[in-house]
Amino acid sequence: MGIKEDVRNMKLVSPYVAALSVGKRDAALEKVAEAIEAKKEEIFAENEKDLAAAKEMNIADAVVKRLKFNEDKLRDVIRGIDQLIDLPDPLGRKTLARQLDEGLILNRVTCPIGVIGVIFEARPDAMVQISSLCIKSGNCAILKGGKETSNTNRILFEIINEAVISAGFPKGCLLLAETHSEIDELLDCYGLVDLIIPRGSNSFVQYIMNNTKIPVMGHADGICHIYVDAAADQEKAIPIILDAKTQYTAACNAVETLLINRSIAREFVPKLSNALAEAGIELKGTKEVTELLDELGCLDNKAETGLQYEEIAESDFKEYLALKVSAKLVEDVDEAIDHINRFGSHHTDSIITEDDDIADRFMQLVDSAGVYQNCSTRFADGFRYGFGAEVGISTSKLHARGPVGLEGLVTYKYKLYGSGQIVGDYASGKSEFHFKDLEEE
Amino acid sequence: MGIKEDVRNMKLVSPYVAALSVGKRDAALEKVAEAIEAKKEEIFAENEKDLAAAKEMNIADAVVKRLKFNEDKLRDVIRGIDQLIDLPDPLGRKTLARQLDEGLILNRVTCPIGVIGVIFEARPDAMVQISSLCIKSGNCAILKGGKETSNTNRILFEIINEAVISAGFPKGCLLLAETHSEIDELLDCYGLVDLIIPRGSNSFVQYIMNNTKIPVMGHADGICHIYVDAAADQEKAIPIILDAKTQYTAACNAVETLLINRSIAREFVPKLSNALAEAGIELKGTKEVTELLDELGCLDNKAETGLQYEEIAESDFKEYLALKVSAKLVEDVDEAIDHINRFGSHHTDSIITEDDDIADRFMQLVDSAGVYQNCSTRFADGFRYGFGAEVGISTSKLHARGPVGLEGLVTYKYKLYGSGQIVGDYASGKSEFHFKDLEEE
Repeated sequence: MGIKEDVRNMKLVSPYVAALSVGKRDAALEKVAEAIEAKKEEIFAENEKDLAAAKEMNIADAVVKRLKFNEDKLRDVIRGIDQLIDLPDPLGRKTLARQLDEGLILNRVTCPIGVIGVIFEARPDAMVQISSLCIKSGNCAILKGGKETSNTNRILFEIINEAVISAGFPKGCLLLAETHSEIDELLDCYGLVDLIIPRGSNSFVQYIMNNTKIPVMGHADGICHIYVDAAADQEKAIPIILDAKTQYTAACNAVETLLINRSIAREFVPKLSNALAEAGIELKGTKEVTELLDELGCLDNKAETGLQYEEIAESDFKEYLALKVSAKLVEDVDEAIDHINRFGSHHTDSIITEDDDIADRFMQLVDSAGVYQNCSTRFADGFRYGFGAEVGISTSKLHARGPVGLEGLVTYKYKLYGSGQIVGDYASGKSEFHFKDLEEE
Repeated sequence: MGIKEDVRNMKLVSPYVAALSVGKRDAALEKVAEAIEAKKEEIFAENEKDLAAAKEMNIADAVVKRLKFNEDKLRDVIRGIDQLIDLPDPLGRKTLARQLDEGLILNRVTCPIGVIGVIFEARPDAMVQISSLCIKSGNCAILKGGKETSNTNRILFEIINEAVISAGFPKGCLLLAETHSEIDELLDCYGLVDLIIPRGSNSFVQYIMNNTKIPVMGHADGICHIYVDAAADQEKAIPIILDAKTQYTAACNAVETLLINRSIAREFVPKLSNALAEAGIELKGTKEVTELLDELGCLDNKAETGLQYEEIAESDFKEYLALKVSAKLVEDVDEAIDHINRFGSHHTDSIITEDDDIADRFMQLVDSAGVYQNCSTRFADGFRYGFGAEVGISTSKLHARGPVGLEGLVTYKYKLYGSGQIVGDYASGKSEFHFKDLEEE
C-alpha cells in the first residue's frame, strides 16, 4: 500500500493545478468555506471523539484547548478563508520582463512550488488554514496532522477535498497522511515532493531535516533575545519583556534571553526582578547578575517577594519554552549583537532603545529573520504581519525567511519567446545581445 | 589544522560585510580589477605551471583550453567586474513596507545570505567571477576551485583577498580551500555556512547533496528537451536542434531528447536524420522511429550518408553530454508535456511551434526552470539572460531557479519598528491591527 504511488500521481497532476485560474482557485475556497459551514455538526461530532480520547489519556487542559474545534474556531477559519480569497493572486506575476534581442523576450513568471508536504501539530484549524493556503497558491499538498485530532482531521480533509474537486480541481491534488510510517514514506519521496514544512517540537523538526533529501522549510529552535539598551525607555521595556515571555510561553517567538546594558543595570535589574517575580517567571542570571542582585538585596526575602532565581554558567543560554528567562549584562550594543549572533537561533530579536542610531546598528548587524525595535518578539507571525495566514516560520535564509505566507509557497519559471534564435550566432558575433528591460507587472 | 575555525570566524564577520555600503563594495571591485591587471605577469607565470602539469598528465586539449588564463581571459574577467560595478545594489531594497498599526512599521529589506561555499571546476575565470559576485552582494565566501588550476587559483585568491581587505573589508571575509578533505570539513559546517553551491559533474553534485545538512543550490542533471510541434516551422527546428546539441555539447543546457509530433514525422524525420548525420550526431530512436526510418529508406546506405543510428527502449532517455540525441514520436503537445515532466530534469525545455496557444500550454504545463518557444535550450545562462554573471544554474524550485546571478545571493530580513507595542493588547482586543501598505522602493 503506502502513499508513494499517490504522491507520484500528484507530481504529474501538479502542473494542471498550477494552471488553474485564480477564479477557479477562489471559487474552490468558497466551496470549502460553504462545505465546512454546512457540515459543521458532523465535524463537531468527530471532534468530540478526539476530545473524549484526549480526556481518557489525561492530556493537559491547555493542550486539549488546542484540539477543540467549536463554533468559535469555525468562525475563525471561515474568516481566514474569506481573507485569502480577498488577497491578490500570487501566481502569474511577471517579476522580470526583458528583451534580450530583437524578437527574443525573457519573462520571469511566478508559479506554485508544486508538491508540498506539511506535517503539523494537533490543531484542526491548522488543517483548514494550510490547505487553504495551498489551494490559493495552486500547490498540491500532502497533509499530516497530529494524531490527537485524527478524527477531526479526517472529516475536515474529506470535506475540503470533495469541495475542491467539485470546483474543478483534478483528483489527487490533496492527500491525507495518517500514520507515522507514512511520514517516513514521504521523506523518501525526493524528486516527487518539492518541499516539506514540518511544524512541531525541536526534536521532531531535527528528525525531519536529518532524514530527507527534500528541501525542508521550518525552524528547529527559537532562542529569541531582548536587549535593553542604555538609552532604553524602561517603562516600555518591562511590559515588552513580560509580553514576550508570557503571552504564549511555548511559542517559538517567546523571549528566552535578556541582555541588559551594564550602565543601567543597577537601576533596571531590581525593577526587572520584581516584575518577573510578580509574573511567576524564574530569572536565570550569570554570575555578574547574581552578584548585583545580591549587592542590591534583591535576593533577600525570596520567599516573601516570590522571586525565583538561579545562577547559570556563562554559556548556558537555552530555549526554555517555560516561565524562565536567562539574563546577562553587556557592555554595549556590539556585545549584545555578538552574543545574539553567537548563541541565538536567527529567529527574532528585539532592542529596547530610544536611540535610533543604536537601533539601526542592532537591526543591521543582528543576523536574524526578524529584528525589532521597542516591541515584543511575539509579533513574529504571519497574521500579525498582515499575510492573512502562515504555513510556518522559517529560520533558513534561503527562499523564505520569517513568517511564511502565500509568497513563500510560490517560485518562478523563466519563459523565453524566440523566433528561431540559436546561441551559435551570438557566440560567433553574427548576432549581438541588446538587453532592454520591459515593463514588469 | 582544518578550516572550521576560519569558517566560524567568517560567520561572525559576515554581518559586518553585509553592512558595508555599496560604495565600499564597488570600490573593492575596482581594486580587484586594478590588482589583477597590475599583477598579470605573475598570474600568467603561475598559470604556466598549471598548464605544464596538465600537459604532463596528458589532459585533453579541450580541457587544457579551459585551464588557460591569458590576456584574453584577463580582459573578459575585468570586463565582467566592470559590468558588476555598474549593476544596481541588490542589498537594502525594501520589498515590503507596511504599517501594522499606528507607530508599528514593518519593512522587509534585502540582505546578503551570509556565508557561501562555492566549489567549482578548474577555470581560473570562474574564481574571479564568483568572488566578484560575492563581493558585490556582501557575502563571505569559501572558494574551492578545481585542482588542475591550483597555482592560478592561489595567486588569484591572494590578489583578490588583499584587494578587498585594502578596500576596508574585514579580514577573513574570503577563504581559499585547497584540499579535498577541506570540502568534507566544509560539508560539516552546518549552522556556520548558509549555502553551498557545487558546480561540476552529476556524481560530484550528488555527493555534495547527500553529505551535508547545509542547503545546496545547483543541479545534478540536465536532461533538456525540444518538442517539434505539428505547427512547427521546420526551417527553424533543424538549426535550433543542431545548436542545442553541438554549440557546447557537454553543457547542462544541451538538448538530450527530441519529441516529434507524429503528424509531421514522415516529413520531418528524414530531414532531421540527414542534418544529424551531417553534424556527426548519433540518433537514438524508439522502435516507432526505427520503423519509420526503415520504411522511408533512411537506414539504407548508412555508410554513405554517415547516419549513426541505434534503437533505444521506450524508457531509455539519458543525459548523454555527447554527440547523441534520443528521439520519440508523440501524439500531441500534451503527450510531450507528460513525457518531459516524467523523464526530464526540470532544467530547460523548448517547443518549436508557430501556434502561440500551443506554446502557451507547453510553457504553462512543463514544470521546468526554463520553458522556451522557438529558440535553443543553450540560452539558459546568466550572461545571456543579462544578469552580468552567474554562480550556477539551479533546478531546485526553492529560493533561486534557473541561472543564478546577484539576486540569488540575496535574502531578506524583517525590520519591525515599534513604540512599546505588546501582543497581549492585540490578543485582548485592547488594540487592533490597521494594516496599510506604504510605498516600497
